Amino acid sequence: MANTPHGGILKDLYVRALFKKLNWTRVVAFQTRNPMHRAHRELTVRAARLRHANVLIQPVVGLTKPGDIDHFTRVRVYQAIMPKYPNGMAQLSLLPLAMRMGGPREAVWHAIIRKNFGATHFIIGRDHAGPGPNSQGQDFYGPYDAQDLVLTYKSELDIDVVPFQMLTYLPDTDEYLPANEVPQGANTLNISGTELRRRLKTGAPIPAWFSYPEVVRILREANPPRDKQGFTVFLTGLHASGKEPIARALQVALNQEGGRSVSLLLGETIRHELSSELGYTKRERDINVARIGFVASELTRSGAACIAAPIAPYSAARQLVKQQVSKSGGFYLVHVATPLDACIKNDRAGVYSRAIAGEIKGFTGIDDVYEAPENPDLVADITKSSISQIVHEIILLLERDGYIGDR
Amino acid sequence: MANTPHGGILKDLYVRALFKKLNWTRVVAFQTRNPMHRAHRELTVRAARLRHANVLIQPVVGLTKPGDIDHFTRVRVYQAIMPKYPNGMAQLSLLPLAMRMGGPREAVWHAIIRKNFGATHFIIGRDHAGPGPNSQGQDFYGPYDAQDLVLTYKSELDIDVVPFQMLTYLPDTDEYLPANEVPQGANTLNISGTELRRRLKTGAPIPAWFSYPEVVRILREANPPRDKQGFTVFLTGLHASGKEPIARALQVALNQEGGRSVSLLLGETIRHELSSELGYTKRERDINVARIGFVASELTRSGAACIAAPIAPYSAARQLVKQQVSKSGGFYLVHVATPLDACIKNDRAGVYSRAIAGEIKGFTGIDDVYEAPENPDLVADITKSSISQIVHEIILLLERDGYIGDR
Repeated sequence: MANTPHGGILKDLYVRALFKKLNWTRVVAFQTRNPMHRAHRELTVRAARLRHANVLIQPVVGLTKPGDIDHFTRVRVYQAIMPKYPNGMAQLSLLPLAMRMGGPREAVWHAIIRKNFGATHFIIGRDHAGPGPNSQGQDFYGPYDAQDLVLTYKSELDIDVVPFQMLTYLPDTDEYLPANEVPQGANTLNISGTELRRRLKTGAPIPAWFSYPEVVRILREANPPRDKQGFTVFLTGLHASGKEPIARALQVALNQEGGRSVSLLLGETIRHELSSELGYTKRERDINVARIGFVASELTRSGAACIAAPIAPYSAARQLVKQQVSKSGGFYLVHVATPLDACIKNDRAGVYSRAIAGEIKGFTGIDDVYEAPENPDLVADITKSSISQIVHEIILLLERDGYIGDR
Repeated sequence: MANTPHGGILKDLYVRALFKKLNWTRVVAFQTRNPMHRAHRELTVRAARLRHANVLIQPVVGLTKPGDIDHFTRVRVYQAIMPKYPNGMAQLSLLPLAMRMGGPREAVWHAIIRKNFGATHFIIGRDHAGPGPNSQGQDFYGPYDAQDLVLTYKSELDIDVVPFQMLTYLPDTDEYLPANEVPQGANTLNISGTELRRRLKTGAPIPAWFSYPEVVRILREANPPRDKQGFTVFLTGLHASGKEPIARALQVALNQEGGRSVSLLLGETIRHELSSELGYTKRERDINVARIGFVASELTRSGAACIAAPIAPYSAARQLVKQQVSKSGGFYLVHVATPLDACIKNDRAGVYSRAIAGEIKGFTGIDDVYEAPENPDLVADITKSSISQIVHEIILLLERDGYIGDR
């Protein structure tokens, strides 16, 4: 259904005509802003069975709560779960609506919309469209306020409320039952939303009793395990502190590891490719680092390993890069803290002597500031460790977090 | 062996000491700059069997011929193939040497190096290190010149030449035989280098008689099929020609397709993120487009879908982007050729009227040049087709080439 930009988005008129054509007179509508698993399939089938009705799965595909799974992924999930319904029982329709997280009044609005789409029943859950707690940590609404408000206007709305019954899995009988029907002492299993996100993140197994393999495959593709996710290693430090040889040796190590494309953004590469006209004022240095942040974050999102090695003397600019990249994948700040005198000795091109002689102005470490990072992931010093030891330390960090290793 | 940047690279002294410790007195060295498959394993085992010798697999891991498979991938292949040798028969050692493609004299040099590593025999193939044909299309050297030259100096070099015998697969008996030992009329199978590259590119099967599944897995990871490769769709055209709505709708379509991260580089995004200080002279426009090329090529290499939509009025700058991106994956140039008067009508912000009134100078289409692409992959015009029709045309191009579709 979703092969074209607006595929699957059907007007209410069309959906009502479809129900007529299908001879559907009683329709339970299910709204969701989340992926669907076995429990959702069971609860909608159960709701339909009890009411001798059909099912309209109508997820919202507009703006939703930050942290929710994007609707592109969800639509693929819904398409995968539809064949799991008995033939002729259920239809999928996408609702291009932004969640307002407005609580009971939003539930009334959602019910009106479903009425317009031809549904006779609407499933409303605990805390439907709930905004969560206020700044004092107290919930704005009670958990059943939404159900109660819709029930109050039930006859006026001309749509019936079906309270959403969370179902529990009983492994001994391989069935889902409403919590209040579970026999005393029966074994039950559950995977919370948090636990599911953890398993997607780490690649830990998601059992077939919880979700369908087709659904899990789609969610894993959109939430690849760490060893398929991108990351950025950001090396900061003085000129000639050893950032470049560390970056190059890390590039070799990651290429040997394989599985990801490796992008090397050396200070001079960036100055040449992205910042040819920028100078070295604080403002220009910040713009240069922000550009690295933009490129590193897009690359990280695409699953690449990005190694950046600018001087990046200012904490605030580095912090912005960290925030930007962390949204897309891993971020590691490595402070190459080789002492200034060793950097000067290391500097074969003699740029430091020219800076000391005053021929170059605004040179970091001589007459321009370097703000040492407060919480780097690693501090390296080429006078104390070899390049390959430092690279190994970085590899150990990446391995610890699951970005590389066991494949 | 290759867990550290220089893992697997062993000094000749060490390798000779190893042979002594292992009591290896006769060693056949095999040099290669290519991945190894079953035929290579068979021919080295056969060479060792006939000479009652052991095998030293010693591939070069330095600079090699353009188009060769990178040594990071090859080293993983060699590590995967070593366990396929009978236990105790073979050792792997990596030679950090650049191929000169210098023909017979390079073969002599390679033989000296193997002698220094303790080998007693050296396998030399047809056209060893051959430079290929000259500008008149004639080969610099005869196919057996390399073997002959090394044989000439055999006693002085104190290493024996083993002529490389290409082996042929006989499916009826599931064995490899030298071409001259194949019984007349026997069925034979072969997969050429070109055919192998085609199968890697398209994801077509590579049979187990040709290579080991472990090797194929590694090669496929480094040469993912088209539907795992990145690409860039580069939209060029006048201001308000429809590049941006096409780009946004294409982003939605590709997100619905899934499987890749999608990066949108709109003209204004790039101007803001990467080119904030650039103006609109030809030189500055070229730099802006070159930056898009840099970012698009890194993203494409990492497997992303990149949609770029700058004005990009100059052919030469677009051509450079195409060259750069094509090295990493797919590149599609879409000329959004909406006529100027429609663009002017389309321009709600009224920038064209200011340019016509002379308030803005150097505005593409008014008082600055737009060089129409000569060979675009697609020409689109929003006065003739809808945005979704144009997006569908782009999707059809991507599908034709296997970047999207059947998964």
